[in-house]
Amino acid sequence: MFESAEIGHKLSKVQYKRIAPRLRADLLDTQYDLHKNGKFPIIILISGVRGAGKGETVNLLNEWMDPRHIHTYAFDDPSDEERERPPMWRYWRALPPRGRIGILFGSWYTAPIIDRVFKRTSRKAMVQAIVEINRFERMLANEKALILKFWFHLSEKRQKKRLKAIESDPETRWRITKRDWDFFKLYKRFYRISESVLRETSSGDSPWIVVEGSDPKYRAVTVGKTLLEAMRKRLQAPPERRVAKSEAAPIVRPPDNVHILKRMDLDQKLDKARYGERLEKLQRRLAILTRHPKFRERNVVCVFEGMDAAGKGGAIRRITAALDARVYHTIPVAAPTDEERAQPYLWRFWRHLPRKGRFTLYDRSWYGRVLVERIEGFCSEADWMRAYAEINDFEQQLAENGAIVVKYWLQISKEEQYRRFKEREKTRFKRFKITAEDWRNRERWDAYQVAAADMIERTSTAHAPWVLVEANDKYHARVKILSSLVRAIEDALGAR
Amino acid sequence: MFESAEIGHKLSKVQYKRIAPRLRADLLDTQYDLHKNGKFPIIILISGVRGAGKGETVNLLNEWMDPRHIHTYAFDDPSDEERERPPMWRYWRALPPRGRIGILFGSWYTAPIIDRVFKRTSRKAMVQAIVEINRFERMLANEKALILKFWFHLSEKRQKKRLKAIESDPETRWRITKRDWDFFKLYKRFYRISESVLRETSSGDSPWIVVEGSDPKYRAVTVGKTLLEAMRKRLQAPPERRVAKSEAAPIVRPPDNVHILKRMDLDQKLDKARYGERLEKLQRRLAILTRHPKFRERNVVCVFEGMDAAGKGGAIRRITAALDARVYHTIPVAAPTDEERAQPYLWRFWRHLPRKGRFTLYDRSWYGRVLVERIEGFCSEADWMRAYAEINDFEQQLAENGAIVVKYWLQISKEEQYRRFKEREKTRFKRFKITAEDWRNRERWDAYQVAAADMIERTSTAHAPWVLVEANDKYHARVKILSSLVRAIEDALGAR
Repeated sequence: MFESAEIGHKLSKVQYKRIAPRLRADLLDTQYDLHKNGKFPIIILISGVRGAGKGETVNLLNEWMDPRHIHTYAFDDPSDEERERPPMWRYWRALPPRGRIGILFGSWYTAPIIDRVFKRTSRKAMVQAIVEINRFERMLANEKALILKFWFHLSEKRQKKRLKAIESDPETRWRITKRDWDFFKLYKRFYRISESVLRETSSGDSPWIVVEGSDPKYRAVTVGKTLLEAMRKRLQAPPERRVAKSEAAPIVRPPDNVHILKRMDLDQKLDKARYGERLEKLQRRLAILTRHPKFRERNVVCVFEGMDAAGKGGAIRRITAALDARVYHTIPVAAPTDEERAQPYLWRFWRHLPRKGRFTLYDRSWYGRVLVERIEGFCSEADWMRAYAEINDFEQQLAENGAIVVKYWLQISKEEQYRRFKEREKTRFKRFKITAEDWRNRERWDAYQVAAADMIERTSTAHAPWVLVEANDKYHARVKILSSLVRAIEDALGAR
Repeated sequence: MFESAEIGHKLSKVQYKRIAPRLRADLLDTQYDLHKNGKFPIIILISGVRGAGKGETVNLLNEWMDPRHIHTYAFDDPSDEERERPPMWRYWRALPPRGRIGILFGSWYTAPIIDRVFKRTSRKAMVQAIVEINRFERMLANEKALILKFWFHLSEKRQKKRLKAIESDPETRWRITKRDWDFFKLYKRFYRISESVLRETSSGDSPWIVVEGSDPKYRAVTVGKTLLEAMRKRLQAPPERRVAKSEAAPIVRPPDNVHILKRMDLDQKLDKARYGERLEKLQRRLAILTRHPKFRERNVVCVFEGMDAAGKGGAIRRITAALDARVYHTIPVAAPTDEERAQPYLWRFWRHLPRKGRFTLYDRSWYGRVLVERIEGFCSEADWMRAYAEINDFEQQLAENGAIVVKYWLQISKEEQYRRFKEREKTRFKRFKITAEDWRNRERWDAYQVAAADMIERTSTAHAPWVLVEANDKYHARVKILSSLVRAIEDALGAR
């Protein structure tokens, strides 16, 4: 795939002077059109061999266009902050919002390729990375991102010459270290591995664009022209080319009309005395577990979903009561902000991911996509249909990074909800908790139940299981939640 | 992901009698609509645990609908014929044409899961299989296939009960062997592995549908309803919802207007005496190589592409002259047949894949998609843009199966083509070789050159490289082709 980038492409000064000023003006104009349009982001990946002009290209793009609307991120070794999150976290943080350009200098490709070149990881790990990259980029494409993956290439001979040239110039000598030469010795291995990664991650949505890096004028114009034509093409496309209806088989109701939530025995109860006793014991155990030395390398992600008035808040408070205020964070999930709306759906959850050694408790969560957004039509069918897979990928990354992920569905009966709504209306200090919207949602009870059953079926996984909680009796619910949480943490820490 | 299929779904006789007759009639009607529509195929995968009614479901679907329009394939251990081709070959053969339903009992999921359960393969192999399955199913979805992936599930307890029941009935006893019980012992491992595979292969386009298998009436109606609703939904969709324009960045011309073909030195020549001498030597060497013991486990796939009159046929004949007629097969690629047009693009090439120990020489090939079809607009931009990745996947499978893949691009100058066209017109026995279409294609010379350069850049890979052949001089061209072929085979067999 690199042959065409070894033929010695170049532009003369005269050619460059003829092309560049016009190109530059066009790029700037089109960048403003992109900004005004505001419908899609552009993600530019800058990858490739050392000495092929990656850095220069990044600088040039920032010089040619309005840098205020360009987000440039250079990824070196991950920071402490980043090391405590899943590897993709740093890239999620760097995604440009719609209407903007993000230049990622180094990207999700760097570690899988380099680690494999130096044999720091197994071939299996590299292949797994390819699975995840393909799924990630597909999500970005579905979220309307225009992805430009540039690979800057130099032949072995040209790279050697280039490194020597940089080294012999007193002004640039500092840029070449022994590490560069060590890496150069692995050129053939690097070539082979990166070719296979490029091949397996090229798709119709996001193909690689290989650029010969030896001539600065050639590579600058190539990148500029490609970016310009890509922006123009997308901006000229008719506004709604995206298929909003899912093309997949629809989700069909079980013909016996029974779903997993209907099978729950909501009459389960716990008396007050027994509740107090068990609660205290579990909270004590939980507090001790957070001080377990192994907990420093883990974190806990708890998701609470359920019908209105199912007791999510109360259950969360019974957990946090056992925790030091510095180790937990409760996130009530409401409508996304403007900034969040300009990003892929899961972005707003990535942005708040906890560091190690912490608890994060979500009062509602990313599952809104397949519950309220599905039912109220806030997103298209295609969007929520793909969300199941995207959410599973997201939670897998959390789990692989050491998170203990536990998800609770609090189930109450329709009658119990009515009772609680009425009680809230009567009780002064609870009145803020009940709104007209709650009553409206109640009318869609069955639709919510069906969506919840679909969600549980599709997203309950070994690394992030759903726990179904019978919540008509609050005592029973809270004790079940706490005890399953304690057990999950014990299992993860090997501390039973 | 299996929880919802462990709750004991069932339908009473009364319910079944109310639903089934109507469902059956609707399925049959809709099947005819599908057939009349003829725009997309339906691919139904039947997978899951033993004893969960997979076979019964297949029989039922054939009973409920018109079996003449259903292609049912049960995949057991691969046959000799199949073992000599890439693993996916048997599934390509089984793909239903547009307007038909294909039921695949056992599928591309079986081997990766089962081999991993029995630890016959590494985790890396399973992950690699997931990469390939995701890319394959994405191709199917892009080719408009409606994919229904059914997974029939039983809880451990229910499976045990079911196996015992089959075993204790004298009429069905033969169906349960020791192997089934051995497999049952691995239930938990099977559960874990299949859950992870299902999770990583569920996508918006082709999600898994998990069906509880314990009650025959329930599972029959579930599958029937799902199929019915999926067919109806797709049939009711507006005719051209597919995005024909690619959403990706366009391919941009190198600004120096130089591409890899322009860099070729077409003046290279060989005199007749030297040609005769080298040709004989190379042909003898080639003949010997085909008798090498290791060749029995390999095969050779040669692709010839180039402008009209570039000498493809002559070069092919210089190779076949050295070969036993039983070991080679020449395939001239022309327009697809109706049957081929009703299948995914690459289907017609999969269908003719050679067995081991053979040569297949393609006079034109699957690259037509990114050459003539691209230029003449026979397919959409989105179609040829994704073809690069699909072709790379295809050739990778050939190479992994032991094929030595060599691709030749024969390049002549525009003047040389003119000379040859004129000569053909003059020479009586060559006149059939030149048509009005050839002259028309010649007018699009530059477009073809650009498409060829794009093709070479995107599909020259370590396992299937392009060899650029300077073909103004036929002697030079033929010797270059033969010698690179001999070298490729020598390298592959370790017989230099």
